[in-house]
Amino acid sequence: MNLILLEDTEANAPGEVTLTGPRAAHLLNVLRVEPGQSVRVGVLDGPCGIGSVRSVAAGVVELHCVFDAERPPTPRVDLLLALPRPKVMRRLWAQIAAMGVGQIILTNAERVERNYFDTHVLTPESYRPLLVEGLQQSRDTRVPRVSIHRQFKVLVEDDLDALFPTGLRLVADPAAAAPAGSLAPEGPGGRVLLAVGPEGGWNAFETALLETHGFRRIGMGPRTLRSDTACVALLALVHAATDAGPP
Amino acid sequence: MNLILLEDTEANAPGEVTLTGPRAAHLLNVLRVEPGQSVRVGVLDGPCGIGSVRSVAAGVVELHCVFDAERPPTPRVDLLLALPRPKVMRRLWAQIAAMGVGQIILTNAERVERNYFDTHVLTPESYRPLLVEGLQQSRDTRVPRVSIHRQFKVLVEDDLDALFPTGLRLVADPAAAAPAGSLAPEGPGGRVLLAVGPEGGWNAFETALLETHGFRRIGMGPRTLRSDTACVALLALVHAATDAGPP
Repeated sequence: MNLILLEDTEANAPGEVTLTGPRAAHLLNVLRVEPGQSVRVGVLDGPCGIGSVRSVAAGVVELHCVFDAERPPTPRVDLLLALPRPKVMRRLWAQIAAMGVGQIILTNAERVERNYFDTHVLTPESYRPLLVEGLQQSRDTRVPRVSIHRQFKVLVEDDLDALFPTGLRLVADPAAAAPAGSLAPEGPGGRVLLAVGPEGGWNAFETALLETHGFRRIGMGPRTLRSDTACVALLALVHAATDAGPP
Repeated sequence: MNLILLEDTEANAPGEVTLTGPRAAHLLNVLRVEPGQSVRVGVLDGPCGIGSVRSVAAGVVELHCVFDAERPPTPRVDLLLALPRPKVMRRLWAQIAAMGVGQIILTNAERVERNYFDTHVLTPESYRPLLVEGLQQSRDTRVPRVSIHRQFKVLVEDDLDALFPTGLRLVADPAAAAPAGSLAPEGPGGRVLLAVGPEGGWNAFETALLETHGFRRIGMGPRTLRSDTACVALLALVHAATDAGPP
């Protein structure tokens, strides 16, 4: 926990915050804070700041927080992910949030099993704490927006332009010649949408539909990766290319 | 399982192989092979090839294999990793092997807990099947060499030149300005050794010792990642830079 994240209802106007539960336990037992010390804090979807420890007691820490004027920018990369199996998805939430994405668009595909959608891993009560865990790891406050789409064709044809109106669309494809880091969005604030397929890959119809809707194919060499490994690796490459700007 | 890997004792000279156990179960129940079909095969630390299914029976598959003349090349990236906690390390073995590394050098550091070394995750009986799982995922045959070092200073000062005689040495450091993909080895066959620190980072002595021994610092931007996420992300960036050659 490299950043203590607060709900905006917890951070009242004068900046006085009383923590209990896991965050207080972390401050007391891991960081071993004492009155007068400062810790990094942030408001979910709000600014970062500094919290001065005012008092500590059994299981309770009182902070006086001063927040930055600006919120951190939204990460410039969005992720369109064919839903992996629940065990993998559970592991991915925090990692994706830590890598930094503006939104996570989860979709069905031919090689996604239907019953993956009937899982509590996809309820906000289940995934939001995992997203927050990832943000606390990477010191970000911006909670990725999440949308879940059971029909791939409807998503790509009808909904995607509203979810991702402008920017560079990329689809990971083991057969593609262009390396993942070779394409960058135009302009300093340009956004990228990265599509990562299911374990067995998109089928031919799905790849064609994505290409029809502006997705360009990028590869990562001949190695076939598990979808959680591929997600992290591709986000790293696309972030690096986006931060570096057009080649 | 995108490649059926065989121990070299299983692949006898005429190429006749009888599979039982998990690999036969995968061929029968997931790929649903029938006689006459072909599957990708490989010999551990040997060549890849094609196996023609000769017969299937309950739990048994007989293959006739023809192997390539050449072995796949050893991945050009090596990994020096401060030992993460056992649960994380168990998850990492397959992912590291799938990303492709020539060797995994595990080390102690100040912020590694000593008892991490007393775990069965570090016995070959435990990690070799996980490495093979990663290779079967990514269609490689080259099992990363593994060495385990309980004394960081002895490793860097006395052992490292034998383990990694020539090539580019990089150490991941959140504070570094040079992006991870900005440095590439010289020459087409040049090797890279990537050092990834413990969850809380290397201490000042460790960073200085690495720099004294030729390591150059690379960063990944302001986000602090969990060590398993960082490992996968950094390997992706370093592989991409290595494959692309010097910038």
